[in-house]
Amino acid sequence: MARLTEAEARQIIDTARACAEAARAETLAHFRTAMSGDETKSATAYDPVTEADRAAERAMRAILANERPNDAIMGEEYGRETGISGLTWVLDPIDGTRGFLAGTPTWGVLISVADAGGPLFGIIDQPYIGERFEGGLGLARLLGPHGESRLATRAPRPLSEATLFSTFPEVGSPAEARAFHAVAGAARLTRYGMDCYAYGLVALGQADLVIEAGLQAYDIHAPVAVIEAAGGIVTDWQGEPAQDGGQVIAAANAAIHAEALERLQAALDD
Amino acid sequence: MARLTEAEARQIIDTARACAEAARAETLAHFRTAMSGDETKSATAYDPVTEADRAAERAMRAILANERPNDAIMGEEYGRETGISGLTWVLDPIDGTRGFLAGTPTWGVLISVADAGGPLFGIIDQPYIGERFEGGLGLARLLGPHGESRLATRAPRPLSEATLFSTFPEVGSPAEARAFHAVAGAARLTRYGMDCYAYGLVALGQADLVIEAGLQAYDIHAPVAVIEAAGGIVTDWQGEPAQDGGQVIAAANAAIHAEALERLQAALDD
Repeated sequence: MARLTEAEARQIIDTARACAEAARAETLAHFRTAMSGDETKSATAYDPVTEADRAAERAMRAILANERPNDAIMGEEYGRETGISGLTWVLDPIDGTRGFLAGTPTWGVLISVADAGGPLFGIIDQPYIGERFEGGLGLARLLGPHGESRLATRAPRPLSEATLFSTFPEVGSPAEARAFHAVAGAARLTRYGMDCYAYGLVALGQADLVIEAGLQAYDIHAPVAVIEAAGGIVTDWQGEPAQDGGQVIAAANAAIHAEALERLQAALDD
Repeated sequence: MARLTEAEARQIIDTARACAEAARAETLAHFRTAMSGDETKSATAYDPVTEADRAAERAMRAILANERPNDAIMGEEYGRETGISGLTWVLDPIDGTRGFLAGTPTWGVLISVADAGGPLFGIIDQPYIGERFEGGLGLARLLGPHGESRLATRAPRPLSEATLFSTFPEVGSPAEARAFHAVAGAARLTRYGMDCYAYGLVALGQADLVIEAGLQAYDIHAPVAVIEAAGGIVTDWQGEPAQDGGQVIAAANAAIHAEALERLQAALDD
């Protein structure tokens, strides 16, 4: 596709931020609503996370229909819409639905824009904390409750000194879980339960690795844009582009990526 | 001990809040400071979590020395100080040091006041989010970035519909881990990595159970006060008071407590 002009890049960033704002309102309207008073309701008719997921994606699609009518859309809830610009918006209105359901503050709204070559710009937004990781099109920043920070991944350190995230201790298939634990067992610190927030922490220079399996394309597009803008690397477990999902490794730098990938592959080959 | 007057209860609550404010400032000064630029520094001389832990406990002890000179103190970092009032302040300046080191926002500052019968009042404070769970002495509330909510635990639901938290998938000894997984395998949803924040979510009616092992007294005093004020139950795995730490189960109500305890004990007896 043609290079984006500065004005077009600006408009894409502004539109992505407008989507994030709209999704904040829609998701927060349903977050932590299944309180002690609504047991019957929540167990049957009212499913807060599905309501929030759908309302947020509808709100984002309404903005895109106005602001970017020529772009395609791929969304978790409402599927694909074709476009003619060569750009595709990839939307996951709630990444971490289980965390959302449990009331934790580390689920997120994922918004990204890709061309045929992959993600160009991405946002990982945490509405409850009010924290937004943005990367691509010249930006790499976190805007949060205590102000703005630059996103920049960590310099290399050995795996034995590294912090590793994964959403679940049981990553993917039994073979995938063994491979994951081959890396986790050699890392200094392994933490679970952070969903997409973990990718933000790698971009922020707080952690070295995220290793997951069984991802969808919409789970990983925005993290790819944010982490690459911050200086990191995201691939699949074969070292190929990760944007289609599946087995994913996100790394702060090439050295830790290579060290972790080698262990993953050795364990898979066993 | 003598019953507290209303004025004395008020002064204890105000002092606990002052401690929480002081600890917020001290912990945030060190949170996420080991950024990409300070690799050498962070790997050697500067240990942000130890610095934060100690500075926060010193700040809280300075407030207590002024405001509550007759009370005893038990703190994670600086040990015990005797008192003559019959009240003891129990302080854990950073619960979830591994989460703090990894940059996650679900560690917390734990502050509580106990008499010989156990915890009377507790605070679970999350400085980065700006969220404070308070329970005891007539209070049961969450003050957070989106305002104030009442803390009230969930009504009973079967374990098969329940949400369970634990900090690690590897709970305590192998026998303890088997017992934990006997409950987790029967629950609807198990989430990890939330440290003390999980107890706040039970008090808020978002989750049904927290099950942990190997705790210290200062890890559990404040959660006991907060969860009991919200209508829940915290015991050890024998159903006895949990305030000395060790194996802990926190539950939203008596029914889910009984169901989970039975499974824990059956697995331990196997």
